Parts: sequence; C-alpha cells; structure tokens
Amino acid sequence: MKVNGIHYRTIWPKADNHKIIEIIDQRFLPHSFVVEELATLDHFAAAIRDMHVRGAGLIGATAAFGMYCAALHAPRENAESFLKEAAERLISTRPTAKNLSWAVQRQHKALEGLHEPGKRIEKAFETACRIADEDAEYCRRIGEHGLKVIQEISEQKKGAPVNILTHCNAGWLAFVDYGSATAPIYAAHQKGIPIHVWVDETRPWNQGAKLTAWELHQENIDHSLIADNTGGHLMQHGLVDLVIVGSDRTTRTGDVANKIGTYLKALAARDNNVPFYVALPSSTIDWELRDGLREIPIEQRSGNEIKFVTGLDSENNRLTTVLCGLEETPAVNYAFDVTPARLVTGIITERGIAEAGEKSLLALFPEYS
Amino acid sequence: MKVNGIHYRTIWPKADNHKIIEIIDQRFLPHSFVVEELATLDHFAAAIRDMHVRGAGLIGATAAFGMYCAALHAPRENAESFLKEAAERLISTRPTAKNLSWAVQRQHKALEGLHEPGKRIEKAFETACRIADEDAEYCRRIGEHGLKVIQEISEQKKGAPVNILTHCNAGWLAFVDYGSATAPIYAAHQKGIPIHVWVDETRPWNQGAKLTAWELHQENIDHSLIADNTGGHLMQHGLVDLVIVGSDRTTRTGDVANKIGTYLKALAARDNNVPFYVALPSSTIDWELRDGLREIPIEQRSGNEIKFVTGLDSENNRLTTVLCGLEETPAVNYAFDVTPARLVTGIITERGIAEAGEKSLLALFPEYS
Repeated sequence: MKVNGIHYRTIWPKADNHKIIEIIDQRFLPHSFVVEELATLDHFAAAIRDMHVRGAGLIGATAAFGMYCAALHAPRENAESFLKEAAERLISTRPTAKNLSWAVQRQHKALEGLHEPGKRIEKAFETACRIADEDAEYCRRIGEHGLKVIQEISEQKKGAPVNILTHCNAGWLAFVDYGSATAPIYAAHQKGIPIHVWVDETRPWNQGAKLTAWELHQENIDHSLIADNTGGHLMQHGLVDLVIVGSDRTTRTGDVANKIGTYLKALAARDNNVPFYVALPSSTIDWELRDGLREIPIEQRSGNEIKFVTGLDSENNRLTTVLCGLEETPAVNYAFDVTPARLVTGIITERGIAEAGEKSLLALFPEYS
Repeated sequence: MKVNGIHYRTIWPKADNHKIIEIIDQRFLPHSFVVEELATLDHFAAAIRDMHVRGAGLIGATAAFGMYCAALHAPRENAESFLKEAAERLISTRPTAKNLSWAVQRQHKALEGLHEPGKRIEKAFETACRIADEDAEYCRRIGEHGLKVIQEISEQKKGAPVNILTHCNAGWLAFVDYGSATAPIYAAHQKGIPIHVWVDETRPWNQGAKLTAWELHQENIDHSLIADNTGGHLMQHGLVDLVIVGSDRTTRTGDVANKIGTYLKALAARDNNVPFYVALPSSTIDWELRDGLREIPIEQRSGNEIKFVTGLDSENNRLTTVLCGLEETPAVNYAFDVTPARLVTGIITERGIAEAGEKSLLALFPEYS
C-alpha cells in the first residue's frame, strides 16, 4: 500500500544488498516513518519480540527471512543444529501467532537435505520471498472475497456509507501488503463504495490509533478513532453494519485468537445482529487444534505496556513516555483472547468465505481433511 | 476513606470559611493530591464539566453546593430567576448523570418560598450538607448489603480470594465517601475476607488506572490493573467471580447507564455465568424512564480525550500530555453506554438488593409506585 503516495511492503530485501532485510519499524508510527535494517539473528528476534514488526502475516514473513539470515550465518560444521536453534529461538519470540511456527517450519522443510551452504542460502532466500509474495497475494484475494460482503450491505443501504468496525491492526502493516481485515475495505474503497471505518484504539499497545488510523489516512478512507469500550454502544444504536477483524491463530473448528478485546466485540455483534467476520490467510489456521479456549497459548506481556503510554509531546515534538497511574500498581497484560466459532459469522480466506466450523473450512481446504 | 492514613471526604465546606467549598481536584490524581477551593458558580460549573470532580454521587453533591453558592451570591432583586439560571447552568454541565438534576431540583424545592436571603442561604447550606451526608450514609449501607454477595462467594470458594472486576471508578472518589461499587469491597476487606480486584483502566479518561487503583492502594486492597479489553478473557478462564460497577442513571425498569464499556463487560459476564451487580444509591434512579437505550441521553465529549494522554514524564517528574496517534485523526468519544436490565444480576441499593426490574425496585422504593 501507499506511504505518502509511494508503494511499500512491510518487509523487503535491501535493494543493493540482499544479505540485509529491511522493515518498517512500526514502533515509531505514525509519528515517524523509520526503515530498519535486519542483518543478524539477534536483530530478527528483537524485531519480532519487541514489536518493531507485528501482525499475523508479517511475523511469519519476518521469521522466514530470519531463517534465511540464519542460513547466511550458519557455520560449515553443525549447520543443521545451528538452524534448529535459530528456528526455536524465532518461534519462542511470540507464543500465540501461528504464522511464526508455520513459516519457520516451512523454511526448515525447504532446507532439508541441502548441505551445500550456497544452495541452502539460495533456497532460504527463495522460500522467504515466496512466503512474503504469497502472503501479499492471499491478502489481495481476501480483499476480493470480502468485497462481496461489503457490496451486499452497500446495496441494502442504497449507497449510504457502510460502517465497518475493526479492532487492532489487521492492515497491510500486519501482513506484507493489503492486510487481512483491511483488504476488503481497500477493495471496496477502490470500487468507489462509500465506507466509514470505526477504528478501535486497541489498548494497551494502541495499534488502532497508531497504525490502522495511519493506514486509512494514507489511503484517504473515512474513519473515526474510538476507545475500545465504544463498539457495543455503537452497535446498540445501529451505527455498525459489519465487524471485520484479523486472527493470529485459528483452530480447524473456527475458534479465533485475535488481539485481546476481540471476544467482547463479537459478543456485542451477536447481541445486536451485526455480522462478525474474521479475515485470515490459511497460514494462520492451526489444523492441529480443535478447542481454541483450551489449546491456543495466550501471550502475557509486561504490565508496563498498560501503565506507560508513548506519544508525541507537542511542546518539544519528541516521543515521550508517560506513566498513567501509580508506579506501584501491579498490571496484568494478556495480549490475545479467543472468540469461539459460535460468535463468528464467517471466515474470509484466500479461497473464499467459510462458515466458522470444521466442515466448511475443510470444504475450502480439503488437503487438511 | 483514607488518604495517607487521614480520613477525607471528596467535598466539604472549608473549615474556617463556609462560603468556600473544598474538593479534591481529581485531575491530578494519582500523581498529586490537590485540594481546590470553589467560591463562584463559574468554579462549580467548571469543576463538574471539566471533571475536577466526577462520579454519580459526587456530581450531585457538588451541584447541591453549587446551588448554595448561587444562593450566597443571589441579588436581592430577581433572586429566583438568578437561582433558576444557576440551576439550569449546573444541570447542563453533564447530560447523563441523574444525580445532577436530582440534587439541583431538591435544592430548588427546599428553597421554594424562602425570600429572606439569610434564610435562603442557611437552608441551601443545610440541604447541600444533608445531600452529602446522605450520599455517604447510603453508600455505607450499599456496602453492608453488597457484602453478603461477596461473603457467599467467599464461602463457596472456601476462603480463596474472591476476584471482583470493576469498571471505571465507582469508588469513594465518585461519591462523598465509601463509593457504590467499592463499598462492598471495602466492607469485605474490613471483615478480613480475602479479595482481589481487577481494575479496568477505563479509557479514555483512565478513571480505573488513575483513581480506582489509587483508592485500593491507599486501603491496601490487593488489585491488578488491566486493559478494558481483558475482562472477557479473564471470565472465560474462571478468573472473575463477580462484577460490580456503578451507575450514572438507572431506569425504573433496571436499565443502567454507566461508563462506556460497561455493556461489553455485562455481555461477557452473561456469556460466562459470572454474576453482574450494579451498586447505586437510589438518587441515580430516574423514575420517569422505562427504556434506557432510547431515553437516557448519552454524553459525547471531545475526541481529544482519546487522542491525548496525560501522565507523569519520569525524566522531569512533570505531568505531560502526549499525542498517541495522528493529530489529523477524527475521534468520537461517547462517555457512557446502557446495559439492559436483562444482563444485570442485581441492583445493590441503600435499602437492599433488587432484581433489575420495575417490580423488584418498587418493592424497595414503594413511594415511586
């Protein structure tokens, strides 16, 4: 998508030196657009763990390039155990995201039996690029499929703006391009369908306020920032036509782990007969799992992410971190929650829209039967 | 309740000069404990509108003292129209809170027919003090009644800590003393019942992080701050035994307007069979209303309350305001939502616990039949 009119992806090999991978360091958005170079495994692990990059697809693509970085630096002796350690290290950075282990395992499989370092590096680079390209392409297709849902509502509303609520950032910044939840929004906007997006600020990390609002601003899409507490009230008053969110891990039965607070929006959508869609490339589906609530590991992060808020101090135009409550207050920070399939109207994938249930998902992805 | 071991109320006549009313200016909590003097109607209106004071009961008490201030400054000629204008001005500061108009109208009625300025002032002072005293006493009784609910759960849990979730600040800072939602918590703590409170930070104004956490810290009650998004996840995992919140306006049918986001917690409580109680003195009940969703006016405040966050900059120990997203982002800020009676387990009043419905409320308050 576009940044000040120029097309960007969220991750790419440096133009004149493919040993270095470049990312947008999302910690500085929307105040500064900073490109960071990743050249060591330490860089990659820190970028994922400390959320320079975040979001289902982008975490996967970054881990894939991280494995390429490991292949670049693998010693001639013990290359395999070096790569195995690198894989474990990358996977351990964020426990909930499925794409992380999915991408690392795909790299692992691609490199199996390749003992010649040059070949291994070449294959790792090729695989990482393919994972990134597929991610972008699958998101584009999610946009095509999801567009139909928006189009239908737009027709029912006789062209009055379709109000779409989204939580967190499942935008192009969370993937390689297009995004998952935002892909249908971008597709509808390109078609000239009038839309308005309610952007949950998404505490504690404020991905909505910092990233989604910035994306929509860059693409000139009408939107309003709201506190996460607001969605229920809006739905009670007919101000939301549709909810679309992303997912970090999805069970084969259609339970959906996504940013903490998603479950509350799904409950409100159900209580007010608002359709609740989850958009995801199939790489986020964990086909091993059946019970999201019991089986999906939920990441706990530092309570300081709740107590401290970083923003621009307009007095000196500097990024400043302020403490909102008492230093002594203990804070507990779960990063994700699980929305049970029963609350999900549909799952928008790269192959079409499925009901949130095993049968319907397998009809689209019969190879996992 | 106590501040650094000394007993305070939230509003009181200045010890050596009853023409001045003192309040805790809550905008500076928890970082500084600032007492502000209110001496003109402008002061009172600004204190309520700009949230130096907030919360159902305290807004009412402040408005009652505001009417006393108006009586103090009423001209000999046209005193009645002066008082009427003062009443209108005070009522218009916050549209959702019922206690505001309730307290002002009670003053108005008390002053009816009193034409002698000295008598009028005396009566207005007496009425304001009575409203404040009653508020404190009613909250104390709410504590007694609500205690039984906590006690019962504690017995079921065989003394393991009772986990109570609360949203916003319905603590003593929201009333004159004790609080509504917190009164049963304080009563349980005094009885030695082990409890732990989940404190919703309560965006956008952060009343939970700034006020409730501070109150509980002052009273040495075990608590954890969480993002507003978290309650659903905690309930799904059995980590919440009970929700208690306050109310700013309640219909005679038991619909409850409270801080935005309350409705989402009520939905999660229902979905997970967690009891959801609302604690309120009867002064917040609007006996004229039957349909909360349609009839309770919901205040909209400036979007800047979402975009800008004020906290302590630890580098220079100064209160600093930072911008979290883009300056250009439009933000929409509804301050309250309505939780329908069907989601409320019980309403804890000064006269006992009612079911959330007209019949049960009228059984406790037959004078409104």
